[in-house]
Amino acid sequence: MGPLPQDRRWLEAAARLAGRARPLSRPNPGVGAILVRDGVVISRGWTQAGGRPHAEAVALEGVDARGATLYVTLEPCAHKSTRGPACADLVAASGVARVVIGCTDPDPRTAGAGIARLEAAGIAVTLVDCPASRASLAGYLMQRIKGRPHITLKLALSLDGCLALANGESQWITGPEARAHTHVMRAQSDAILVGGGTLRADQPRLDVRLAGLEHCSPERWVLTDGAVPEGWHALPSPEAVHGMADVQYLFVEGGAQTAAAFLRAGLVDRLLLYRAPILIGAGRGGVADLGLAHLANAHGRWRATDRRLLGKDVLEVYEAL
Amino acid sequence: MGPLPQDRRWLEAAARLAGRARPLSRPNPGVGAILVRDGVVISRGWTQAGGRPHAEAVALEGVDARGATLYVTLEPCAHKSTRGPACADLVAASGVARVVIGCTDPDPRTAGAGIARLEAAGIAVTLVDCPASRASLAGYLMQRIKGRPHITLKLALSLDGCLALANGESQWITGPEARAHTHVMRAQSDAILVGGGTLRADQPRLDVRLAGLEHCSPERWVLTDGAVPEGWHALPSPEAVHGMADVQYLFVEGGAQTAAAFLRAGLVDRLLLYRAPILIGAGRGGVADLGLAHLANAHGRWRATDRRLLGKDVLEVYEAL
Ligand SMILES: NC(=O)c1ccc[n+]([C@@H]2O[C@H](COP(=O)([O-])OP(=O)(O)OC[C@H]3O[C@@H](n4cnc5c(N)ncnc54)[C@H](OP(=O)(O)O)[C@@H]3O)[C@@H](O)[C@H]2O)c1
Ligand SMILES: NC(=O)c1ccc[n+]([C@@H]2O[C@H](COP(=O)([O-])OP(=O)(O)OC[C@H]3O[C@@H](n4cnc5c(N)ncnc54)[C@H](OP(=O)(O)O)[C@@H]3O)[C@@H](O)[C@H]2O)c1
Repeated sequence: MGPLPQDRRWLEAAARLAGRARPLSRPNPGVGAILVRDGVVISRGWTQAGGRPHAEAVALEGVDARGATLYVTLEPCAHKSTRGPACADLVAASGVARVVIGCTDPDPRTAGAGIARLEAAGIAVTLVDCPASRASLAGYLMQRIKGRPHITLKLALSLDGCLALANGESQWITGPEARAHTHVMRAQSDAILVGGGTLRADQPRLDVRLAGLEHCSPERWVLTDGAVPEGWHALPSPEAVHGMADVQYLFVEGGAQTAAAFLRAGLVDRLLLYRAPILIGAGRGGVADLGLAHLANAHGRWRATDRRLLGKDVLEVYEAL
Repeated sequence: MGPLPQDRRWLEAAARLAGRARPLSRPNPGVGAILVRDGVVISRGWTQAGGRPHAEAVALEGVDARGATLYVTLEPCAHKSTRGPACADLVAASGVARVVIGCTDPDPRTAGAGIARLEAAGIAVTLVDCPASRASLAGYLMQRIKGRPHITLKLALSLDGCLALANGESQWITGPEARAHTHVMRAQSDAILVGGGTLRADQPRLDVRLAGLEHCSPERWVLTDGAVPEGWHALPSPEAVHGMADVQYLFVEGGAQTAAAFLRAGLVDRLLLYRAPILIGAGRGGVADLGLAHLANAHGRWRATDRRLLGKDVLEVYEAL
């Protein structure tokens, strides 16, 4: 069955709900689901902490779903687990008339089998290619497809691209609003990473200091060939992110060498640029040597996707092309 | 007489008209004037090339102004010149009932005398403090008040603040739209300046290469202790701008040492930042040493006032606080 005009908007709403699962759903994907009948929302669900119950189970729990449409950002799973039933079976048994899906699941145990099982049960299934659903699953899909986390590089820079004075002073370039926003970004990540240089220079805590979100403080990682403090993880090279199987979202906070190492390796999916309205002049650059031989090679790699004012500062978001 | 609700909007329209006089009006200020009766525009005027006729004379030429209101961005002049009559006399003789002025003229030959002469002729005069009028007169007011041009510093930078690769390659950071915009900015300036280093490295033409605006190509200046090519002017130090009596708008195009020299001297009023969505990494910084000892000293100096997309690039405008 083809998509209806309203399908995309309901899926986008489900994708926003999925944000509530982030980052607590791991190791499972953060999924959002909305149950709708005659244009009215009957119930909603998103993946719960630790990954269970799944979004569909939450949305179907204790409601009469007969004849309704279920919007779900990811194809319902087709595999039984010791931790719960296959969602495809649960949905089939619920009596829903129609399921609209934002993204197929590349998990080989599901990959199309979820849809097939629903259709076998007589349910009309519509697959919509929904960018909002895919974006809400970026970390999960990156792990499934490339075997590594979705990686965000954060830089806090002056207008002339410095992250510190020549004498090393770097507190503070940006103001309290931008720094608070960074803590929100941390709270949406499974792991934060800094370079060994930043660890030694700043001894950062890298925790989430926002009231009510302290429990979202991610794993702390250091890019280093050396030893790391108790409670931290060592990453010996950017390429070693391929071993971070449990991490869907990695947040890289610098410094300049670490930024350059990830960029050179092609391992930055998203750039968060916090920019303060100041000039530093001949300070420490935010990005170390990228081995760029020609200016032409720098072009066509980044696309601006978002921008917001944070106090006196500006946050710019770029995504890798 | 106090201002009426519509006065500010008519003055803002007059300030936009004044833009047409820039930069051709020098040595005179670029003024705009609108003659209005019963909410209908009767005529308009702006300062003509070379500074004469004045905006008021153009607006009053060949129309019946009796009972109308004249909106003018700058106080009408009170001094006769060999090149034409005093505008205050011209306006007084025109029969206008009311004159609304956006900014008093600090020229000691006028400074209030223009208003006094109008009032003596029985005309109702309203002085409005109009930011748009003042902005349109920025170069003239800067010369009158500080004895130097209004100075804009332009920088074309990567996201990480570089104006060239480490090997010096700098063509091109920004795209054709941003470069064309720079030519428009040149065409609004009386003089362009680069440092001796840029002159030697790039041998720039610094002309206006926009069809129909070639005649607006400004004077070409070099910040240098040395000799300059035929047809160029030498500026021995940033402070020497105090000798540029004929120049209302100076456009400084870099490089990094020149930018830093003007910034250190507190001689940048406006910053135009053309930013390309690229990362260079360990390239040449856009601003050389500013002698900044503490990060706190960098804050509170700049205010973002405009921003526009130019192809893939962004132009950001900052004004000195
Ligand atoms: N404003 C901001 O946003 C911001 C953010 C972060 C940091 N900073 C500042 O940046 C400065 C530190 O930056 P930095 O560039 O000197 O250091 P850094 O990037 O934090 O760390 C460099 C270290 O990372 C490790 N490393 C780099 N590339 C590697 C690779 N390919 N494989 C394995 N390990 C690798 C090495 O650690 P080992 O030597 O341990 O092997 C290297 O010494 C500090 O002053 C800090 O305050 C500012
Ligand atoms: N992307 C862009 O927007 C852009 C724009 C312009 C330039 N650039 C690049 O920037 C590079 C040149 O920059 P740069 O920093 O080396 O040189 P620069 O700023 O263009 O020129 C430096 C020269 O300016 C003079 N100077 C500087 N401070 C002075 C002072 N206080 N008093 C008197 N003279 C002073 C000196 O000239 P003398 O030695 O002659 O006395 C000095 O050698 C070139 O590679 C160019 O391509 C890029």
